[in-house]
Amino acid sequence: MKALAGFRELYPEETLRRSVILSTWRRVAKTYGFEEYDGPTLEPLELYSKKNAGGEEILGQLYRFEDGGGRQVALRPEMTPSLARMAAAREKHYRKPMKWFAIGNFFRFERQQRGRLREFIQLNCDLLGDVDPAADAELVAFAIDAMRAFGLRAEDFVVRVSHRGAWASFLKGKGISDAQIPMVLQIADKLERDAPEVLEEKLKAVGLSLSELKDFIHGAPPPELHAVIENLTSRGLGDFVEVDLSIVRGLAYYTGLVFEVFDRSKSLRALAGGGRYDGLVSGLSEGAVDLPAVGFGMGDVVLGNFIAEVPHAEALMQDRLAEARASDVYVIVADEARRPEALKVVQKLRDSGLTTDFGFSSSKVGKQFQAAEQAHAKFAVVIGSEWPAVKVKVMATRAESEVPHGELAEWLKNQQV
Amino acid sequence: MKALAGFRELYPEETLRRSVILSTWRRVAKTYGFEEYDGPTLEPLELYSKKNAGGEEILGQLYRFEDGGGRQVALRPEMTPSLARMAAAREKHYRKPMKWFAIGNFFRFERQQRGRLREFIQLNCDLLGDVDPAADAELVAFAIDAMRAFGLRAEDFVVRVSHRGAWASFLKGKGISDAQIPMVLQIADKLERDAPEVLEEKLKAVGLSLSELKDFIHGAPPPELHAVIENLTSRGLGDFVEVDLSIVRGLAYYTGLVFEVFDRSKSLRALAGGGRYDGLVSGLSEGAVDLPAVGFGMGDVVLGNFIAEVPHAEALMQDRLAEARASDVYVIVADEARRPEALKVVQKLRDSGLTTDFGFSSSKVGKQFQAAEQAHAKFAVVIGSEWPAVKVKVMATRAESEVPHGELAEWLKNQQV
Repeated sequence: MKALAGFRELYPEETLRRSVILSTWRRVAKTYGFEEYDGPTLEPLELYSKKNAGGEEILGQLYRFEDGGGRQVALRPEMTPSLARMAAAREKHYRKPMKWFAIGNFFRFERQQRGRLREFIQLNCDLLGDVDPAADAELVAFAIDAMRAFGLRAEDFVVRVSHRGAWASFLKGKGISDAQIPMVLQIADKLERDAPEVLEEKLKAVGLSLSELKDFIHGAPPPELHAVIENLTSRGLGDFVEVDLSIVRGLAYYTGLVFEVFDRSKSLRALAGGGRYDGLVSGLSEGAVDLPAVGFGMGDVVLGNFIAEVPHAEALMQDRLAEARASDVYVIVADEARRPEALKVVQKLRDSGLTTDFGFSSSKVGKQFQAAEQAHAKFAVVIGSEWPAVKVKVMATRAESEVPHGELAEWLKNQQV
Repeated sequence: MKALAGFRELYPEETLRRSVILSTWRRVAKTYGFEEYDGPTLEPLELYSKKNAGGEEILGQLYRFEDGGGRQVALRPEMTPSLARMAAAREKHYRKPMKWFAIGNFFRFERQQRGRLREFIQLNCDLLGDVDPAADAELVAFAIDAMRAFGLRAEDFVVRVSHRGAWASFLKGKGISDAQIPMVLQIADKLERDAPEVLEEKLKAVGLSLSELKDFIHGAPPPELHAVIENLTSRGLGDFVEVDLSIVRGLAYYTGLVFEVFDRSKSLRALAGGGRYDGLVSGLSEGAVDLPAVGFGMGDVVLGNFIAEVPHAEALMQDRLAEARASDVYVIVADEARRPEALKVVQKLRDSGLTTDFGFSSSKVGKQFQAAEQAHAKFAVVIGSEWPAVKVKVMATRAESEVPHGELAEWLKNQQV
């Protein structure tokens, strides 16, 4: 029997790699003062109605069913609707801006391809209750630092920023009605995928030409983006950002800044994406709560693939994996009659926070030393004829010492290995 | 719109509490040399067929449905079947014993009551490929230390150990056939819930009396448990363990040691439970892989409730929460013209790993100091007329210093606050 297609079985090596990614994200979030939250994995289906959810595409990919109580439910395909509901319900309890992040698993029933799975982990990061472009900049800076924390550099990736407001101004200037704007944005979103004739045909229906659209995209950066670019430049992050108006984002709820993170070689999918969604919380709460917001999501799968492709990022990852794998002590029972004492020592070392392993049954000392090496232990502690002292061997140098067992934990902690 | 009944919305305060629980579990697992793995949240329904899964009760509580591709699937109600499949597929790659743990979310559609949710987090810990009672003891020791790590003591909780093998010997001695044993164990599992008349009636059907059952339960500890008790006593953990043969565990797949962790006052449900299941991997792999195993699960909900009820454990939790909430620096912009320099300083502090926050738009210095306090910042860094130096204020003592901005990160890291 196998796991379902598109679902991962994460063995320890793979889980360790994922742990490094998740703990790095958490570390960066902490330095930014973002607080972690979480929502249910299973939600009422209506939470993902057209009004709230990101778009038609996501609705078609929902894992949906009727639960044992006759409720229509869905596995969450994204975090934002749950966040918007939670924020609307209790926003009065929190100082603004609310800086919140979540790391959770999400589900989409989609065709399988590289970097796409049906269950994946995503970092979701949102800043609520502030309309200042400085809030946009703070969020983009977090996205940049969430990549830099893996050793990724400006030569490796870029944040492409665009603005829905700038698009709206341009389109209104061309006589496009508010009602038609979403449709034109849908067309613009497919600019690199659809053939020019198809695009031209579609645009004609609203009285636009492809060259008008391209002129706008390749024109001067719109004033709506000046403040955010300036802010990021002051932070020294200017090299990581480019204005690219071809970015419109598929999701329906964006209202201002939108951005995507790409690798410079463009060989992979977007590594992260987000934007400002000032109307979503209001919509979800039926106008009861007006809470402007800006957020982004970053998946673990594409990022993991990207790190593996960039030698200096992968080298850093390998260092962190080696550090995470390292163990402090392997206890060797040289005299089986001393096993009770060995168990006492093991317990004491673990109590003091030292990673400690040992063999459960009698075996040759040489074999136990082998096991100590395989466990990546820094020290072997031999329990035998020296009792009540023990023999300590530094695995890397083979240097030996004799230490009274009562002082062992303290002694080991004072060693620099 | 609300979340589904039985599903949690975890706001930052609650998530922080959960983070302390999960990181504590991971820390203890690390000291024991257990490695983390993970499996899919959604699994083929047949993985939970009667043969593999824990029992009828769990099967009746499955969230099951047909996915978009016509596959019968289920949200995982427990980890063990996924683990057994994963272990069977790759056990040749790993040295024995395999010491694996997972922390994941699980789903059961059950009646709501205290400490029971429909989605919950569970620590699952398993030791595979070793039949020695020392392996059983290592696992029970981990369960004990996973509780002690929260400041819980022998006066607060106890591990009740029992043994399916001892039950089988006793029942065979009474002439009960192998085929009837599971049924008798089901009756024994309900000993405290069913009325004596009901029990007596049920037992009569297999030729047993209630007093025979009770004599066995209250009799001498069976030899099958001697080695594990002795081992735990050598570790100094004897006070945390009691033989209690009334523990049989509902799950069908157990074959040897079984145990449950209870609070001493017995006001709560079991805090954790597990046992040896030597036939499960073989069954799942249709005999291809014979991998004896022992494991346990511990949920976050009951444990969280328990910690809150035990004053010394809750005090430790509060210390850890305060530590996790603490922030290093709040940057105050005293001169709005210096905002670009302030942004540069913020970025530099975060780059050096210091938790740093600041306000996005112009506001009075007094208000910014207030925000620094609310952010639990240890230092306020004031960017103003002193530039290129900055004013640093220790929030707790109000002590002030002037520091060149280029030396700030280093200077702050050298302070002991």
